[in-house]
Amino acid sequence: MRRFVVVGHRASTSPGFPLDDLAGGAGRMDLLLNAASAALLVSHDIRRDAEVILILLGPPDPPVTIRLEGERLQSYSPDIRTDAGLVRGALGRVSRIEREASPGVFVSRRGLAEALEGIHEPVIQLREDGKDIREFELPRDIAFVLSDTMDMTAEEEATVSRKCIAVCRVGPRSIHTDHAIAIAHNELDRRHPP
Amino acid sequence: MRRFVVVGHRASTSPGFPLDDLAGGAGRMDLLLNAASAALLVSHDIRRDAEVILILLGPPDPPVTIRLEGERLQSYSPDIRTDAGLVRGALGRVSRIEREASPGVFVSRRGLAEALEGIHEPVIQLREDGKDIREFELPRDIAFVLSDTMDMTAEEEATVSRKCIAVCRVGPRSIHTDHAIAIAHNELDRRHPP
Repeated sequence: MRRFVVVGHRASTSPGFPLDDLAGGAGRMDLLLNAASAALLVSHDIRRDAEVILILLGPPDPPVTIRLEGERLQSYSPDIRTDAGLVRGALGRVSRIEREASPGVFVSRRGLAEALEGIHEPVIQLREDGKDIREFELPRDIAFVLSDTMDMTAEEEATVSRKCIAVCRVGPRSIHTDHAIAIAHNELDRRHPP
Repeated sequence: MRRFVVVGHRASTSPGFPLDDLAGGAGRMDLLLNAASAALLVSHDIRRDAEVILILLGPPDPPVTIRLEGERLQSYSPDIRTDAGLVRGALGRVSRIEREASPGVFVSRRGLAEALEGIHEPVIQLREDGKDIREFELPRDIAFVLSDTMDMTAEEEATVSRKCIAVCRVGPRSIHTDHAIAIAHNELDRRHPP
């Protein structure tokens, strides 16, 4: 299993966030949904061995964790506006205990620390100042943690560093979250063909 | 200069294409705009040495070529809905001779063949069945040609093959256009740091 945990510092936790303003009013929900697409989709198919965990920390009621399981998703659109509808639906059903709001879409009132606790694969943080991912031994089952456009807070960094085995970078430039995920997948696809 | 030419077989050529239905009514304009983001953007900045050329072949009035120059763009949003507005603006000003509809956004009534004619860098086609890009010598100045979700027609393939020096793949899996672009950039960033 490949997991990608993405922290959305401003991502809306309202089930009514605006579909027409994912970048603004929904707190860069577009970034999280692009990251989810990079984690879950290949051409004309879903990666069944992948999962993305979105940590929504924006108003009005954070934290919320949305977990999308490639194995159970019945469909996932390359169109993020459609996927935003899935997330809105899940935000209307948040509870302490994780529940499956729709097939493959799980929601809970977890934050970053609790979400990481539930991960049993080795965890790697992807960050610009890490070691080159190409020179790092990557197991087949693995989890990556990434932030959105904002750096992690000191508290988040501490939480992540307690759990992760390494900090890696995907290349020499600082790039968008979804592109970093695509490159990490590519590296794994090369080393561990399905 | 790094150029990325992306063929959008169904992409709308109407200046009134719907901003709320980029994936459907606008003919997978979302795919083209995601590809443009991957070609042009890094974290908090534009790649000044990059250009993306979108070939729009959908109704009502194809072909139209939109060329986005990283060097001249004054801003380019990570939010594709905002960028779609730039494309709509350009579609309202199509003419035979290329013109700059807004800073860095050029529009003309060119098709794929004419767009390729204007490219002086070595051209590589990115396709699933090509040679591994990691094993190929990539010059600093280079152009890539990619298709959207549809395979190129036989005529398009013939046009591209007359111009291109090689067909490469970015990895073992067939992935989305924007992710392939992100991986090609990564490969170039590693070999030719800015």
